[in-house]
This record gives sequence, structure tokens and C-alpha cells, in this order.
Amino acid sequence: MGEFDLLARVLDRLPPPSPKVHVGSGDDAAVTVPGGATVTSVDALVDGVHFRRGQASLAQIGSKALAAGLSDLAAMGADPGEAYIVLGVPIDLDEEGCLEVLDGLTELAVATGTTLAGGDVTRAPSLALAITVVGHAARPEQLVTRSGGRPGDVLVVTGELGGAAAGLLVLEELDSAAGLSADEAAALLARQLEPRPRLDAGRALARSGATAMIDISDGLGGDAAQLARASGVGVTIQASTLPVAAGVAQVAAAAGRDPLELAAGGGEDYELLAAVPADRVTEAIAAVEATAGAQLTPIGELAAAEGVEIRRPDGSLLQSAGFDQLA
Amino acid sequence: MGEFDLLARVLDRLPPPSPKVHVGSGDDAAVTVPGGATVTSVDALVDGVHFRRGQASLAQIGSKALAAGLSDLAAMGADPGEAYIVLGVPIDLDEEGCLEVLDGLTELAVATGTTLAGGDVTRAPSLALAITVVGHAARPEQLVTRSGGRPGDVLVVTGELGGAAAGLLVLEELDSAAGLSADEAAALLARQLEPRPRLDAGRALARSGATAMIDISDGLGGDAAQLARASGVGVTIQASTLPVAAGVAQVAAAAGRDPLELAAGGGEDYELLAAVPADRVTEAIAAVEATAGAQLTPIGELAAAEGVEIRRPDGSLLQSAGFDQLA
Repeated sequence: MGEFDLLARVLDRLPPPSPKVHVGSGDDAAVTVPGGATVTSVDALVDGVHFRRGQASLAQIGSKALAAGLSDLAAMGADPGEAYIVLGVPIDLDEEGCLEVLDGLTELAVATGTTLAGGDVTRAPSLALAITVVGHAARPEQLVTRSGGRPGDVLVVTGELGGAAAGLLVLEELDSAAGLSADEAAALLARQLEPRPRLDAGRALARSGATAMIDISDGLGGDAAQLARASGVGVTIQASTLPVAAGVAQVAAAAGRDPLELAAGGGEDYELLAAVPADRVTEAIAAVEATAGAQLTPIGELAAAEGVEIRRPDGSLLQSAGFDQLA
Repeated sequence: MGEFDLLARVLDRLPPPSPKVHVGSGDDAAVTVPGGATVTSVDALVDGVHFRRGQASLAQIGSKALAAGLSDLAAMGADPGEAYIVLGVPIDLDEEGCLEVLDGLTELAVATGTTLAGGDVTRAPSLALAITVVGHAARPEQLVTRSGGRPGDVLVVTGELGGAAAGLLVLEELDSAAGLSADEAAALLARQLEPRPRLDAGRALARSGATAMIDISDGLGGDAAQLARASGVGVTIQASTLPVAAGVAQVAAAAGRDPLELAAGGGEDYELLAAVPADRVTEAIAAVEATAGAQLTPIGELAAAEGVEIRRPDGSLLQSAGFDQLA
């Protein structure tokens, strides 16, 4: 089957691998000489579960699969290193289609300095990708886990929230784009279909003393709960401070939804949520602006009492949960 | 969905991770401090493509998926390190079934000293596993690629061949076990369903100066061609010297097949095929016997002329191909 040589052909077209990669694709395994600390994450995306082929281009599907993995590296403050790709090919995806998926993926790899160092292509009942990403840091202490947050730390978030959830509504409900300009609608769709991992911001936050960090893949509330639980603390978030993306209010209104719920509960924004000591927040804001050109917004703080509360501007609860409800 | 916490529960039950693993499962990514050279390989196995659920137990499916990955590390002469598991769960596989898959996999991980350091569990249309294995060596020069073979090197193979292919015939054609004792039939089934990666033999061969090495997953002829092509040489194999597993002759006779074709063309034996300089073959045989308790058999040699020939005892060709036919 010709398409099963595709990966080798795609990899052969790429720029030379990073100096860490001694043996790339084509042997039994890739050989790297990483040095320092290595960060590894695996993610799977399956048609009908994580995406729908009709709603996104094949290039967007490939790109988003890699972006989700690289976002995990960003949330550790790691440098991107290598990626390994498993592509499951259904019977109705031809060679050209496979190439589109891999082209979308390689474009993001090149843009982020990630070496595609190997993979496996197999027949599968539906389009599926499993991506292994490997990142690096000079020393393990430079990396930021989820578990170092302390009461009094300020909770900060990069960029804007709710855009991916609003983009999904625009994809699924035609009317929900009614109040938007063409540019606003395109921006929201891009948030849903072409997320970009916050690699620069993650490293800037790590250098600015972030004590805990996670990427927002499941939604602010759930991911804040993960961070808080891992750190053994609680979190209070002021919904009035959330940086809601442009156009989210209009989409929410058209769809009969609460914009704050899209911002606090919608997933896949792939922004970074971090705990930063109060006396380093100003430094962190400046560092994220300088290195990533992104805003960093304080949205709440870590508290001794466990659980997560997100309060509306009027003081009422938007979300509240003990950790046992968030499993 | 409860089963999606399964991986965390399984990982929590395991022995402590190796000292290389600083942060295991449960954060955005695993953190390791590998040192030296790192070897990475990814493999996917899909129900109906690589295995059939009815023909193997769920534990065997999990175990074989990891074995296939570890076999790639063995073929580099690497020490096993970490594994990351993507489990795709179909609607008709319940929590207990998932645990059986993971238990089979973890049993082999523990037996080989492999740390399960992370993973992802997702809904999927059919049972599927994607396994990332990471191995280690103190220095990259200690690892054996496919590409270092030289004309005059002796081609050696570990263990016995044809057992996995004969085991598959026993699984698929009841009559083909006719001439076998119960023990022989069980041994052939085990070769097909519960392969064991030749990690000790791989390291022994690396220390004994192997210039090129590959594991036999696709079949001796095809894998020999891969090694020869990567090394820029040709290969001649004497079929009379092949170490054919016990029972293969009887199964082949019952199924109307040629036993040499099962040994030379059947895949999934997961033995190691290596090129060794002629003056180190005796040392390599002793080292594989001493460290892995396995036989190492010289079966042919590398030649300057490209292509692969496997000759029958009477001198006629069993297989012959230029590399362009073996893509």
C-alpha cells in the first residue's frame, strides 16, 4: 500500500533535524542525545471523538493534533524537541488526503522548531492520530509541574478565553455567527481549528517563577481544579477579570448561551493557566508580553481551602466544586 | 466515563518508576533525566489489522503491543526505559476488559524493567494501541543501527524462526496442529501470541561488535533486505542453516506449506538479525548464550552486490529480490 511510505517521504522533505537527533526516521528507532531533562507527552485524536472530518480541513486536523501535544510541553515551560506520529488511515482517505494531514502537521512542526523524528502509518477504521511529543530543558528544576502552587499565589492566564468554544458554535450552528464581522468569525474559527501552542509564553512563565502550570484543554474550571488538586490548594477565580475573546459575547447571545460559561467552561483554548508568586506577577506580565507578544491576565488566587470557585461580577457563583466532583 | 481513569489507576499500582523518571503520569507530561543517548520508537496495533480480538486474550494483545515496541529497542542494543500507552477503547470493551489489556502490558513492563510513564485513553471505533517506547544507552556509539553492515560481515539470527507463522496457522486452521504434541502446539501459539523482546541478546550483540541489527517483525527476507539496503550491501542467506522452530515442519506439512517459507517469510518472530564481523562471531555466540540463554546462528553473509538471495539446500533460490521490489 503506497500510502504507508508516506511518512518516510514527508520526513525526507523536511529541514534537517535538530542537532539532538542522531538517527531519525527509517531505522528501528530514533536516536537522540537530549542532555538535561526530557519532557514527554502522548495524545490521541480520533475522528468522531475529538474532531469531525467534515468540520475541519485535513491539514487543520493534523496541525491541531500536534498543537495539542506541544501545548503540554508549553505548560511545562519546556523547549519543543521531537515529535513521533502514528497515523491511522481509514479506507476512504487516499494518499493525497494523508499528505494533507501530514502537511498541516509538518507546517506547525517547522514553525515551532520541532523535529519529526519517526512514526508509524497503519490502516484503521477511522482517521486517528497519536502524537508523542518530546521537549527539553537544561535542568529538571526549570520545568513547571502542576503541583507547586501555594496559597497566596496569583492565578494568571495567557491570551483570551472562550474563542475555541465560540468557534465550535459557529461551526455547528450557522445562526450563531449572525452578529459577527467576517474577520471576527474567521478569528473564532481559527481558535477552534488551528490552535497555536503557547511555547514562548510557557518558557517566559517558567523563568518568571511560575510555581504550577497547566494548559487549558478541558476548560478553565476543570483545568484550574486539576492544578489546585495537584498542588493541594484551592482556587478562587473572579469571572469579571476573565479575558474573553472578541466575538464571544455576540456568539453567546445568538446561541442563547452565557459568554462567561463559554470562557470558563469551554475547552480547547490551549492558553496557559499558571500560579505565580504575588511579588513576581508584574515581571511575568512583562516577560510574556516581551517574548510571546501575548497578554497575561491575573484572574484569581490560590487559597488554602480546597475546591474551585468561579464568582460572577455580582458575587454569585458561576462554577463551584469540590475536587471529588471533578474527577 | 470511568474507564478513562483506568490508566492512572493501573500506573498507581505499579512498582516505583526508575530513577530516570522525575515526574510520572498525572502531569501535563512526564519528566525524565535520561543522560547519554535516548532511543525512541512508536508502534500502533489495530484490531482487525494487526490482531483479532477473538484469537488472542486481551492480556496477550496488550503484552504483544509492548513487546513489538521493546523489540525495536532490542534491535538497537538499548536498555529499556519508559513506555507511554495510547489505548483506544471500543464501545463493546468494558472497564474489566481495559484492565485485562493493561495488565498484560504491565506484566511485560515489570518483567523487562520498563517504567510506564504516561498515556492517554480514548474512545475509538475498535480496540487500538499506540505504544511509544524509550530506551537508553550511555553513549550513542553503543547503539546499533541498520546501516553499519559491511561486505564480509556474517549474518546471524537469535533463537528460532517460523514459530510465529506456524502459530498463526494453528490459530486459523484447526487441522494444522494435527501432527503436534500439546506442548509443541502451545509453544507455537506462544510464539504468535506472547512474543518476548530479545533485550538481553540485543545488548550482547551490541557489545560483541554487531555492525547492523534489525528485529524480525515482517519476515526474515524482508527485514534482511531492509538491513542490507540501509547498509548499502547485499545479503546471501543459506536456507539450510536457518534455525527452524520445533513443530514448524509438522504444521507446514499439515497446511500444505513449505517450512522454509514459514521460517524465511513469516513475520512476528521478533528475533534479532544482525551483521557481525567474521572475527567476532564466536564471541557473539558465546555472549548471547551467556546473557540471554539463546542460541545465535550464522545464516549467511553480507556481500558487495546489492539485493537479497535466500538459497535452498539444493542451491535453488527460495527468495531473491532487488531492493526496488522490496519497498
